[in-house]
Amino acid sequence: MPELRKDPITNSWIIIATERAKRPYDYKLTPDNDSKDVEKCPFCPGNEEMTPPELFSYRYPDNKSKWWVRGFPVLSPLLQIEGDIDQKGFGIYDSMNGIGAHEIIVETPEHNTSFADMNTNQIEKVFWAYRDRIIDLKRDQRFRYILVFKNHGVESGASTIKHSHSQIIALPVTPKKIKEELEGAKFHYKFKERCIFCDVINQEILLDERVIIKSDHFVVIAPWAPRFPFETWILPIKHSHDFTTISKEEIMDLAFVTKSFFRALIKIIGENISYNIILHDTPNLIPHEGYWKTVSKDFHWHIEIIPRLKQIAGFEWGTGFYINHLPPEYAAKELKKILNK
Amino acid sequence: MPELRKDPITNSWIIIATERAKRPYDYKLTPDNDSKDVEKCPFCPGNEEMTPPELFSYRYPDNKSKWWVRGFPVLSPLLQIEGDIDQKGFGIYDSMNGIGAHEIIVETPEHNTSFADMNTNQIEKVFWAYRDRIIDLKRDQRFRYILVFKNHGVESGASTIKHSHSQIIALPVTPKKIKEELEGAKFHYKFKERCIFCDVINQEILLDERVIIKSDHFVVIAPWAPRFPFETWILPIKHSHDFTTISKEEIMDLAFVTKSFFRALIKIIGENISYNIILHDTPNLIPHEGYWKTVSKDFHWHIEIIPRLKQIAGFEWGTGFYINHLPPEYAAKELKKILNK
Repeated sequence: MPELRKDPITNSWIIIATERAKRPYDYKLTPDNDSKDVEKCPFCPGNEEMTPPELFSYRYPDNKSKWWVRGFPVLSPLLQIEGDIDQKGFGIYDSMNGIGAHEIIVETPEHNTSFADMNTNQIEKVFWAYRDRIIDLKRDQRFRYILVFKNHGVESGASTIKHSHSQIIALPVTPKKIKEELEGAKFHYKFKERCIFCDVINQEILLDERVIIKSDHFVVIAPWAPRFPFETWILPIKHSHDFTTISKEEIMDLAFVTKSFFRALIKIIGENISYNIILHDTPNLIPHEGYWKTVSKDFHWHIEIIPRLKQIAGFEWGTGFYINHLPPEYAAKELKKILNK
Repeated sequence: MPELRKDPITNSWIIIATERAKRPYDYKLTPDNDSKDVEKCPFCPGNEEMTPPELFSYRYPDNKSKWWVRGFPVLSPLLQIEGDIDQKGFGIYDSMNGIGAHEIIVETPEHNTSFADMNTNQIEKVFWAYRDRIIDLKRDQRFRYILVFKNHGVESGASTIKHSHSQIIALPVTPKKIKEELEGAKFHYKFKERCIFCDVINQEILLDERVIIKSDHFVVIAPWAPRFPFETWILPIKHSHDFTTISKEEIMDLAFVTKSFFRALIKIIGENISYNIILHDTPNLIPHEGYWKTVSKDFHWHIEIIPRLKQIAGFEWGTGFYINHLPPEYAAKELKKILNK
């Protein structure tokens, strides 16, 4: 059973995931990821029997053997779905058994594609899958947070399976970064009675220095204080704390801006780019008719895109201070140049 | 002039360091570090004219042309030493001009060596240099925090210069990670009236499950909730918040445990290991006779060693939750096996 442990000083949680290592001692200098591709891809159509049983799939109505998107639990999950949460103290230390969910969403039947190349109908289906899985996992009252994320490319910490996929992890605790965003938003609300993300969006649209794309429903920005070169956020313009309430029109728009952004990014950085995509949705805070609700004003869902163009060194680990050589105004200008061509 | 910016939501600072990039647009997929070594090492004896003017050096009393350790400002510093701190708001955003210090300490005249190979007299001199520079920089009341750190090896985010060196950065704000440790320690003190680090040390020594080395003055432990495989902390056993108050006997002991630890680590991981070393010393909080003081109970200085054996992926960026496949009890046991041989 994996184990969650809390650092007694900073209160950050970590997961001790010994089950995933073949031997706990596999720490010679072999990188996590390998640039060579797998021989027989378990995510390709025809190889479905190689994955654990499906949790869902979006299939062609007229040909049920064909699918657009499918999802299943991870073969060696980081957290285990069965069991009750059991929190323990060891003197001053805190520990919790590793209860949670860990799932894969295969985003496309095509082996060699990404958000930059997929058609927007396909990307739309990926976002619907995010929504449907979040709704399903939120029903489980053991979980405090559902994180959807994606690792793309060799530098992203991705697995050897190149076939485009996302991951979902349901956690029994609210993660530190989400808590920080929540606390920042609450503090601002207390002071201004406004959502801080809404204020950011309004200021960005007004100044138009860091806006990369503004569509009917979304704004894509290079944030004011980006930790990484070309770090980018996608935010719904209309206040919404809960990704699962997204409308069909909004999700079509989201697919469109996502594809546009990645096409432009790839033109600047190249096809080999590595990145992480993270969906920051509202945490599950108030139990409400068998479902967890957060108060709307406390959060504003958004997507963070982190291109992996630089390594983190001692200064960043020691301080939590990030060094970025690329002003976000410059990143936005360059991306816009390509988008407006 | 570099610029500090604060994220309005999480209140994390970043540095926009455009001066350091040759062109701001150098973001094609070229890694920060290159495994090939420089041709003429600016840190080797005989090439002293290649570095900016010395801030200090420890030289042979009988032959002033020879040195053990020397320090100087970085050629293209991350922060600029001249000027007054100027904080500005841009609507909801915060910005500060990039005032600070950024220095190099060359740890040894030998080009190809590390803490695992240096003799302990040499390592001792490196720690004395840390102390002397911190004392000097703390006199400058513009600075809130002095961070000493070291990047070693290709995966550590180190520069192309392989010659063993440390860096010092003086910052005009207290970094987030230090604030988190301070807040955790303060919270614990309020509750227990004891230092949390002291409590950790006592519990570790009592249980002896994660202790790697216990010397007269220091304990080297694999922490309870390590973010990374083989993450290791070195803590003074006797409570001390201020590294600069270290005694000669303690610093000799520190040099000894540091060398012992790295020798054992290299035997497990190999000579090519990359790591970061970070000295977490007390922040400068209370102005006191032209010098900044923190209240002693609020902190306990320590060294964090982070071997760079895995990549950070979307899950970690999205949550601040770290996944570690190696239980610290196992890491401590393996290291102790080698140390006791």
